[in-house]
Amino acid sequence: MSERRPTVVIVGGGFGGLAAAKALRRSPVRVMLVDRTNHHLFQPLLYQVATSTLSPAQIGSPLRSILGRYGNITILMGEVTGIDLERRCVVGNNADRQQVPLPFDYLILATGARHSYFGHDEFAAHAPGLKSLADAAAIRNKILGAFEQAEAEDDPSKHQDLLTFVIVGGGPTGVELAGAIAVLVGKTLRSEFRRINPASARILLIDRGPRVLASFSERLSAAAKARLERLGVEVRLGSSVEHVDEMGAVVNGERITTRTVIWAAGVAASPAGKWLQAPTDHSGRVRVANDLSVPGQPNVFVVGDTASLDEDGHPLPGVAQVAMQQGRYVAKLILRRLAGQPAPPPFRYFDKGSLAVVGKGFAVLQSRKVRLSGFVAWLAWAAVHLEFLGQSNLRVSVFVQWVWTYLTGTRGSRVIIESSAPPTCPVPTPAEAASPKSGP
Amino acid sequence: MSERRPTVVIVGGGFGGLAAAKALRRSPVRVMLVDRTNHHLFQPLLYQVATSTLSPAQIGSPLRSILGRYGNITILMGEVTGIDLERRCVVGNNADRQQVPLPFDYLILATGARHSYFGHDEFAAHAPGLKSLADAAAIRNKILGAFEQAEAEDDPSKHQDLLTFVIVGGGPTGVELAGAIAVLVGKTLRSEFRRINPASARILLIDRGPRVLASFSERLSAAAKARLERLGVEVRLGSSVEHVDEMGAVVNGERITTRTVIWAAGVAASPAGKWLQAPTDHSGRVRVANDLSVPGQPNVFVVGDTASLDEDGHPLPGVAQVAMQQGRYVAKLILRRLAGQPAPPPFRYFDKGSLAVVGKGFAVLQSRKVRLSGFVAWLAWAAVHLEFLGQSNLRVSVFVQWVWTYLTGTRGSRVIIESSAPPTCPVPTPAEAASPKSGP
Repeated sequence: MSERRPTVVIVGGGFGGLAAAKALRRSPVRVMLVDRTNHHLFQPLLYQVATSTLSPAQIGSPLRSILGRYGNITILMGEVTGIDLERRCVVGNNADRQQVPLPFDYLILATGARHSYFGHDEFAAHAPGLKSLADAAAIRNKILGAFEQAEAEDDPSKHQDLLTFVIVGGGPTGVELAGAIAVLVGKTLRSEFRRINPASARILLIDRGPRVLASFSERLSAAAKARLERLGVEVRLGSSVEHVDEMGAVVNGERITTRTVIWAAGVAASPAGKWLQAPTDHSGRVRVANDLSVPGQPNVFVVGDTASLDEDGHPLPGVAQVAMQQGRYVAKLILRRLAGQPAPPPFRYFDKGSLAVVGKGFAVLQSRKVRLSGFVAWLAWAAVHLEFLGQSNLRVSVFVQWVWTYLTGTRGSRVIIESSAPPTCPVPTPAEAASPKSGP
Repeated sequence: MSERRPTVVIVGGGFGGLAAAKALRRSPVRVMLVDRTNHHLFQPLLYQVATSTLSPAQIGSPLRSILGRYGNITILMGEVTGIDLERRCVVGNNADRQQVPLPFDYLILATGARHSYFGHDEFAAHAPGLKSLADAAAIRNKILGAFEQAEAEDDPSKHQDLLTFVIVGGGPTGVELAGAIAVLVGKTLRSEFRRINPASARILLIDRGPRVLASFSERLSAAAKARLERLGVEVRLGSSVEHVDEMGAVVNGERITTRTVIWAAGVAASPAGKWLQAPTDHSGRVRVANDLSVPGQPNVFVVGDTASLDEDGHPLPGVAQVAMQQGRYVAKLILRRLAGQPAPPPFRYFDKGSLAVVGKGFAVLQSRKVRLSGFVAWLAWAAVHLEFLGQSNLRVSVFVQWVWTYLTGTRGSRVIIESSAPPTCPVPTPAEAASPKSGP
């Protein structure tokens, strides 16, 4: 054990990769954790950054401040481009664009998933998704910027386009975004503009299926939909987005003119399946064995959103709990194997339940036995998310912000920060003092 | 008074513009406040965002949340491109790049200043300055990214270049940045890396003059320099930066290889002087009359960093206090003139004193009678900055963060957020397990 510790390379510092790394701390392996960013992202609250309640740093914890004190863990910020299974190397680019290999004895791929444009990747330019802090900052700039542009726009006929927000996808992310935008316009921004009425904003939530929050019970889906509609959100079910461009979207043949389309639909797994040349499901997730290893590669594991595993005939959902439990499972399996102990029983997901927020002070909660909607579910949501947020200083600051926002409507992070050159925004003629020389 | 209220256009929501707008709230004028961003920036703490102690939102307050509740104030986010004095219009571009005029009866220009590259604007690409939240985020990414790149770099000979930080300018911004970087590497990052020792970072502070903090007394300058040196900062006085490129800087003929040069020197005023075609000083500041009006334009005023005014034979310094007092003065003057009252006496600056922080728990304080350096000055600095920060929720969150950082060394905002595509960073071979097939 003392001579040469085996190396476990973990790619991805999300819920799955971080859980594996934590379970391997202070153990007789060297851990190399590779991530494109320097932080673990608490994705369940990303919509609150996109709607300016929380700051990016409140849900992004530097991987080094979580794991840096454990001497057997090395953290590398970098981009993985492939895997060489023969030589047992992860391959990445260095700063000079040269390929450099990172050898492993065990490999855990926890590279996650993004949303899917269902074959229409050209929508991406006009309908950003929400997966990273950069995404959230871009969407926040877009939403807040729309109100600024409308206020500075002389021509009232352009106001409604600017104040129309289309959210594609009725899963938890879409529902939470739509509800948060509704509260933003109805409470926070209400009395701060002179030429526009923020509360006149139109918020549309589009989904192909027959109900929102399809993974919840029908009763909870209906409760969420009713709550969204009470907040002023137009919920359009059974509706397909056929086209998106800079002028708006086409939904079931109808053109909706808007400057803001946000994409929260579909799942496209990371390219881990391509790296491994392993069988994948229709979303690109690697079909793993019931010990989460890649068939034929007993030392290579895939966990979380980029793994595909059925349990009792149903695929496991792409949620944080699955990824965390899988990360811990693989860490335990590796340590047992190294200690010469028998393998653990096949992976089983323990479903602790699901939660989704709708607007302010309202959530839906579904666990094995409980179905709950309303304020109590929202308290449960808040408690669970604070519990899982991890670092105690973040817990305190998020809790304080939530109480503050709940009581006053004030958001914590309403700055528009454009990188590099500031945008050229309109400085209009006030309508009530139009310049005499304007006109054709 | 009831028929048509005169319009006061204020360009710039910094200390001067915001003070003027606040002083005109609930008064018998219409106020149009135009800013390129949506927030008032508390610039004195910008270096703490650049060194990852504070989040951008902790020092950026939306102008609408400060002023939005006053019905006579309209806030417009936009870019001003010129002034038409004949037609009494501020000219800006709208979203379609058409010029649109904004008529005024009174105009207050509070458009600030940037740093100056002393005629070498080509340095800008490699030596960013620190004036906006976007600047601070870029510098934070650069500093934190340098440590990430070094940790991921196989070749130890490249480590020292990455871990060398050159700060140009020994004024308060340069001194505060250098001290904060020294504390960052010596405390926060100390034990989180495996291949590099963050404490081995080299921090250079360069200034052309004979001492740092030249606006303070000689004794305080010497105390600040001694403190910087104790923190490990190399202070190079009487040194000129002759060249900056992607490989580093040339200082007094010596090439210093580094990836990080930060520019905190010089003053270049906004183009307000050009817009007005008014006489300016060598930094481009508009020479104003002693009531802050532009000579020959009794209804046009310039305040803050973009105004040039001598008092007792010395030019007023470019600090927040001057801008705020000038903004309030002009607001008062306009209201008196509208009310038919006599003009106020010429503007006089009341100097409440100056403060600068050096590292952790140490500041220098200079006011009319007091000269102080050390911990007590630092407490005074903290109290004054919390007092002036404005909104009470920000005060609380900044105070809590400072206490937390002081006690634990933990920073509040250490996320690297790259806009759009993630950077390609190195994934190296671990030095201790080099691939057998590497080499020429």
